[in-house]
Amino acid sequence: MSILDQINQPNDIKKIPDEDLRELAKEIRLFLIKNVSKTGGHLASNLGTVELTLALHKFMDFPKDKLIFDVGHQSYTHKILTGRKDMFSTLRQFGGISGFPRPSESDCDAFNAGHASTSISVADGIVRARDLKKDNYKVVAVIGDGALSGGMAFEALNNAGRLKSNLIIVLNDNKMSISENVGGLATYLGKIRTNRKYTGFKLNLEDTLKNLPYIGEKAFKKLKTSKDSIKSLFVPGMLFENMGITYIGPINGHNIPMMMNAFKAAEQSNNPVIVHVITKKGKGYAPAEDNPSKFHGVEPFNCNTGEKITVKTSESYTDIFSRTILEIGEKNKNIVAVTAAMADGTGLSAWSKRFPKRFFDVGIAEEHAVTFAAGMASCGMHPVVAVYSTFLQRAYDQIIHDVCINRLPVTFCVDRAGIVGCDGETHQGIFDISYLSSIPGLTVMAPKNADELSEMLKWACAYNGPVAIRYPRGKAYYGCESHTPIEYGKSELLKKGSKLAILAVGKMVKVMDLITAELSEEGIDCTLVNARFVSPIDYEMIDMLAKDHQAIITAEENVRRGGFGQAVAEYLLENDKKITFRSIALPNEFIEHGIPRDLRDKIGFDPFTIKEKIKKTIDEL
Amino acid sequence: MSILDQINQPNDIKKIPDEDLRELAKEIRLFLIKNVSKTGGHLASNLGTVELTLALHKFMDFPKDKLIFDVGHQSYTHKILTGRKDMFSTLRQFGGISGFPRPSESDCDAFNAGHASTSISVADGIVRARDLKKDNYKVVAVIGDGALSGGMAFEALNNAGRLKSNLIIVLNDNKMSISENVGGLATYLGKIRTNRKYTGFKLNLEDTLKNLPYIGEKAFKKLKTSKDSIKSLFVPGMLFENMGITYIGPINGHNIPMMMNAFKAAEQSNNPVIVHVITKKGKGYAPAEDNPSKFHGVEPFNCNTGEKITVKTSESYTDIFSRTILEIGEKNKNIVAVTAAMADGTGLSAWSKRFPKRFFDVGIAEEHAVTFAAGMASCGMHPVVAVYSTFLQRAYDQIIHDVCINRLPVTFCVDRAGIVGCDGETHQGIFDISYLSSIPGLTVMAPKNADELSEMLKWACAYNGPVAIRYPRGKAYYGCESHTPIEYGKSELLKKGSKLAILAVGKMVKVMDLITAELSEEGIDCTLVNARFVSPIDYEMIDMLAKDHQAIITAEENVRRGGFGQAVAEYLLENDKKITFRSIALPNEFIEHGIPRDLRDKIGFDPFTIKEKIKKTIDEL
Repeated sequence: MSILDQINQPNDIKKIPDEDLRELAKEIRLFLIKNVSKTGGHLASNLGTVELTLALHKFMDFPKDKLIFDVGHQSYTHKILTGRKDMFSTLRQFGGISGFPRPSESDCDAFNAGHASTSISVADGIVRARDLKKDNYKVVAVIGDGALSGGMAFEALNNAGRLKSNLIIVLNDNKMSISENVGGLATYLGKIRTNRKYTGFKLNLEDTLKNLPYIGEKAFKKLKTSKDSIKSLFVPGMLFENMGITYIGPINGHNIPMMMNAFKAAEQSNNPVIVHVITKKGKGYAPAEDNPSKFHGVEPFNCNTGEKITVKTSESYTDIFSRTILEIGEKNKNIVAVTAAMADGTGLSAWSKRFPKRFFDVGIAEEHAVTFAAGMASCGMHPVVAVYSTFLQRAYDQIIHDVCINRLPVTFCVDRAGIVGCDGETHQGIFDISYLSSIPGLTVMAPKNADELSEMLKWACAYNGPVAIRYPRGKAYYGCESHTPIEYGKSELLKKGSKLAILAVGKMVKVMDLITAELSEEGIDCTLVNARFVSPIDYEMIDMLAKDHQAIITAEENVRRGGFGQAVAEYLLENDKKITFRSIALPNEFIEHGIPRDLRDKIGFDPFTIKEKIKKTIDEL
Repeated sequence: MSILDQINQPNDIKKIPDEDLRELAKEIRLFLIKNVSKTGGHLASNLGTVELTLALHKFMDFPKDKLIFDVGHQSYTHKILTGRKDMFSTLRQFGGISGFPRPSESDCDAFNAGHASTSISVADGIVRARDLKKDNYKVVAVIGDGALSGGMAFEALNNAGRLKSNLIIVLNDNKMSISENVGGLATYLGKIRTNRKYTGFKLNLEDTLKNLPYIGEKAFKKLKTSKDSIKSLFVPGMLFENMGITYIGPINGHNIPMMMNAFKAAEQSNNPVIVHVITKKGKGYAPAEDNPSKFHGVEPFNCNTGEKITVKTSESYTDIFSRTILEIGEKNKNIVAVTAAMADGTGLSAWSKRFPKRFFDVGIAEEHAVTFAAGMASCGMHPVVAVYSTFLQRAYDQIIHDVCINRLPVTFCVDRAGIVGCDGETHQGIFDISYLSSIPGLTVMAPKNADELSEMLKWACAYNGPVAIRYPRGKAYYGCESHTPIEYGKSELLKKGSKLAILAVGKMVKVMDLITAELSEEGIDCTLVNARFVSPIDYEMIDMLAKDHQAIITAEENVRRGGFGQAVAEYLLENDKKITFRSIALPNEFIEHGIPRDLRDKIGFDPFTIKEKIKKTIDEL
């Protein structure tokens, strides 16, 4: 029987003797590689945090104590240790366990996660609640050095400095977000890492002082009393200490006994304590150690070689973006590209190599990314900000306040718009039409296929104002060929039918193209219009459709509330076009994890159900 | 002739001899007090930055150089010095000069401002653009210590640390945001202020080292070579230096020659430099020095006494909130209150005195405020987050990701919803219905009058889920009395008429109450419904209205796109209720500054125009 076999429910790890923990760590790594190679998921970050999680589980009691993961994709070992080991074959699949902490899944998951930089705020709140209710439990936040570059983590540290109560913040420093980390803070952490050996931690200042070269014991007694800031000479975490947070570290994040000692020491404090542990992303699996960025989030792969099982045969929308923006950048020297720690994911890696001076990866810092872009745009550049729909939510105010009030030429390339699938409710890009369309002066577009994404990018990069282009995850569509040039605010008529007209946004054009083709074979010819512009709306086209048809249907992969359909409906009614109208949109609900097809089936957003809705509408005319 | 008389256009200050600058500062203070006492505006922050602005204008060339103010309400002296002196009688009035930097107003205003913590990001962007275009001008960002607590300022500092180019960041440290500053950073800055006299700055480390007590010159030579971090002993801005930013300070922010020397020294660096200046908010005007928070933003006042001219006679919605939340807090010990540096403005000052342990002012940090509240809510508390509509935009992602996905009981009290007036486009609360209503599971409400705000607060604090209550700036309405209890998702029928039904949101109920009363005198009886819930929508009521009436009109003070009206329209059409429909909403545009009545007149949102629209609708039935 393996050691892992003895781990079946929360706190089972308490029964494992300390000397067996290294072996357990090995078994967990094999388990993770075996399972994630089948299901896909986040691998490198989980391989890096096996020992850290074991040490935390030795230290904490679940579910009584609260462990808050930042981002949360590194919680697999925690899931293994809290009774979910046997569910790993269902990881990230519809109805299976989530790839992120979910309180709905286990009472050992203290808080939902998905986006970065939230854990210290959550933990600060939990500590306040604990103390007000005079409860007694441990609160530990685990945050990566990447997530620490997000502004709200700093806001939280700034406030944690006022806590007169214990809070342990584990800084899991692997020198990476998804890509290599950047910025002054990363440089600072780098200095700590290189300046000191992993000699454990020194809570006791005296000891440290005495052992320092060049400085006599006596001289130091004077120094120590003379200036509080003398500490900064020797305590590597002075940046944190300056903010009122005790610093312990750096500590080897693969050495369990050292970490446990650190946690026990940290527990004694009546203040927040940062325990700085150094881990290696991908630890213990050569392909992942060599290329942690590639093994950050993976599709199913061959565990012996690390090679993907399904070979990619066609281009994604991200690929189209990647290729087109290079082309635009060759001609227009004013184009600059901005990403928030997602050069690979958003397709900017090629750009970063071709135009390193015009490439800016600001780290996990979407707010700064957008306002920084606004600053560049105010002085003659045309920034392209490539970001996922769900992460752009972070910069909603900056889009309004810094870009749109100033009518600045910034192009937002909003990738992963619509249902994204296995990452679940925190990652679905299903709100951007609502939150972007209501911003005055922001042009919002969505391409029907690969070519149109290229055309829209070229159009936006030549347009003197803010534009957002939303496009989905995954394979680009090549159907629906047509080459009417992009014209501001104008939609595109694709098929002329009678009775019923469909006005589809972005990827829904493909769905509707196939459905209308089927309907055509059944003898029903519908009009199909590619909206192209979500904002402003092409009212002229709607007038024309309303005149010639008995019904209009809009289609978008976004929640209904605040969406394209509602705006069209209001225009129709407001102008006394009392025509039959249906809006096909996502329900006003969060959408869990699963492959997109399963999710669409579940919420009735699959082609079959949509087709039935259209047919029913026609039947009722 | 006064010295100020010689200042009529940009760079006129260059002609003023240095020895006259103190006198000029005095004259500017008198000018500010005289003018702002008549027009109202931001006073204390401007009185505190007179010398700083003079020093910057001696140092910089306008409009060539770029000066970026954070928040921007401290830009009055800059406006005086750039040809706008004679327009101060129109300050913040419709058609007059704005209270914030506006590039549309002068080419000496480099960037729009209004919200906090954006200036370093903007400046970072401008520096990058300057360098890419091989331009040559100075870039200076002026940020307060309050704004520095906002996360995006940290994101920007983190990125500025990578600039290999000159950028001057003036940290205007007055120990305040609007209220007293809080957090680890504030404590740190406080240490710098108290530990060192204003002896100017020391770029030269050697000098500093030698002059230190207890430490011999020789010992220090050794120390200095032994450790890079020795600097932190003596350079008070080590926190910034650790992030890769050169620190100069602290410097007396009322001493012009010292500041000019600092700027000239900073200019020599090929890296970003923070110049830390200490200023006194309200400087030179006793009432404002004594009570800077009261004189942060003021209405017209008597300049001799500092007393307000118009005595407040009635309660505002903020007062109602303030009073009611106290009442709720007495009974329910799980209620905690959170504000982001706006205890006074949001009405939480009384609470902070009554329940200091259940009061959390997190500083200018809306993102943290919301996720911190979510953390508390996850462990049994019911947080009330009081924030202005425009500032809540900053926490859009946190509302979705941390509060609503987790269905946590957090009550958002969204003050200053709708047109706010004189602060202009950056401050209007005209998007919250759009951005909040599309979030699944978030209940969005708006009270018709004072009593209903109380009732809604009580209801929300007893509800086990996220709720946002939006209410406007200014005098609470006491009309439309009626006391049907609040029921989840249910609107309230106020008047039963025929033909036309009006469904009004929040403050629009008052407008519609008056209009329908007038119409009634003209023999037209309309139905009037108080929506109460913006989300979810009371479809049952709409069904009823649609059945009994020929027309429905919705009314809301929010942009049309994504608003309540569009959602109602879509419901009607989707359900084949092809009734006449009109939506009264704000145009999809940013709204400039001015008193609300003037603004409403301009955009056709005044009672007269609204009444005409209703009458026209009835006539056309």
